Amino acid sequence: MKTYRPALSNNALPLTHAIDVIDEKGRVQQIEIPGERPLTIYLDKKELLTLMTLGGAPEALTLGYIRNQRLVNHLSDIESIQVDWETDSVAVKTNIAATTIEEKTAKKTVTSGCGQGTMFGDLMTEFDALALPMGAQLQQAHIYQLIEKIRTHPSIYKKAGSVHACAVFKNLSSGPELIYFIEDVGRHNAVDAISGLMWLDGLSGDDLIFYTTGRLTSEMVIKGGQMGIPFLLTRSGVTQMGLSLAQQIQMTILARCSGDHFLVYEGSQRIVFQAPQILPVS
Amino acid sequence: MKTYRPALSNNALPLTHAIDVIDEKGRVQQIEIPGERPLTIYLDKKELLTLMTLGGAPEALTLGYIRNQRLVNHLSDIESIQVDWETDSVAVKTNIAATTIEEKTAKKTVTSGCGQGTMFGDLMTEFDALALPMGAQLQQAHIYQLIEKIRTHPSIYKKAGSVHACAVFKNLSSGPELIYFIEDVGRHNAVDAISGLMWLDGLSGDDLIFYTTGRLTSEMVIKGGQMGIPFLLTRSGVTQMGLSLAQQIQMTILARCSGDHFLVYEGSQRIVFQAPQILPVS
Repeated sequence: MKTYRPALSNNALPLTHAIDVIDEKGRVQQIEIPGERPLTIYLDKKELLTLMTLGGAPEALTLGYIRNQRLVNHLSDIESIQVDWETDSVAVKTNIAATTIEEKTAKKTVTSGCGQGTMFGDLMTEFDALALPMGAQLQQAHIYQLIEKIRTHPSIYKKAGSVHACAVFKNLSSGPELIYFIEDVGRHNAVDAISGLMWLDGLSGDDLIFYTTGRLTSEMVIKGGQMGIPFLLTRSGVTQMGLSLAQQIQMTILARCSGDHFLVYEGSQRIVFQAPQILPVS
Repeated sequence: MKTYRPALSNNALPLTHAIDVIDEKGRVQQIEIPGERPLTIYLDKKELLTLMTLGGAPEALTLGYIRNQRLVNHLSDIESIQVDWETDSVAVKTNIAATTIEEKTAKKTVTSGCGQGTMFGDLMTEFDALALPMGAQLQQAHIYQLIEKIRTHPSIYKKAGSVHACAVFKNLSSGPELIYFIEDVGRHNAVDAISGLMWLDGLSGDDLIFYTTGRLTSEMVIKGGQMGIPFLLTRSGVTQMGLSLAQQIQMTILARCSGDHFLVYEGSQRIVFQAPQILPVS
């Protein structure tokens, strides 16, 4: 069965811009900086909010935002997503009744993540009911392969810095296979765009691994859980609420992933250690 | 004249928590992670939003948030700020008419920064009118002193990672003097808390230097500008919109500040280079 796809524009922006700076010796240097543009989302002509984005995957970002905020429940309810950089806006057309949209966007209250994000609706109620696959396993050797794949992947970050990357890997018995790699000026955008791509491709998270260069704060764990992915990896750290939410849904959390080092914060039963010296954590 | 101070609670939270993790050799280790708690702001009993915060300076954070969103214009209009961690909430009491508050919070539209922040009102209109002191100067040697002071300052980051720091220095002829140092799980919270402290202490930004460990995105430049600070320094990078806003108000931007390296992105006329080889940037 062919997966349904809404009509999508294809309006990715150039990702970096060359600028002149002066170094500490007074010399002019040319460097690259990441682009950053406002993108105002209109859902059936109702203005939702303005995101600041690198603009590398604006259609997927919009789709993922709408999905993660549970503003639309079925991909087939979305007719089209049209990004227009002349007006810095994206128009989402759905076949949903205007009153339903009105109702869902009215509850714009909870906010999280970087500190001051915006979330619609009763995400937390839904979060409590999430069930991640308990039988999923990740080999230690595959963790190292994944870290190495990220390290050698071409990126805006290497060229210009100042962006966060999120990636999704398929957890194959032969090793992790990179499916998506998205960078954006905000972690939340990158994870939303990945969620949008998963929606388009009809992927569930059961056999996936999620990697991010950013910290695992509450919002990242919530979104990873919403996508149904049992493994969250970061080269950065974890905040207390991120950890506490991961414990709630028994998500496996690895942080400080770098070279041949990593720390398992939660869900170590899903990690298959190479050496036999694993000690149980109380 | 004594500066007016609202009645403030003093309810900082413990900043880090010890947890057990398992390392790549299967060994249990105890590490520290930063706290992260929701804090819902009520402005005269009207619920504004929920921030996720480290909780190290919740009163200053609330004050700065309200100030930076221009929800209250004068400190003397704020009677009290009471943080209550039993309900994860903070009550702000003002002497402002309920209708005025209602009006100001209605325009909750623009959003920025980490990608998905929330801003109230017409911040950008005000931003265009900002004038930063053109005569302010910063010595190259003082830049190095500032970087060294930050490097050696005790911090949650060194202990637990996963937080951003913002600091404000007085730009004295004898060298930079650290006035405020705030860490939080979100950059926006740290900068808001500093703004709150400046408000309490009646400080203008003319002779100050702002430093952050985080990227200079649009929102950081807007907030730095609102505080009237001519110098923004980061050890990280700058996004395109951050730079473009800084150019608009001729703010001096230094990024990649580390050791004896830095790059001047904008406003180099305020930097006094040690060596005479400064070249003009076109």
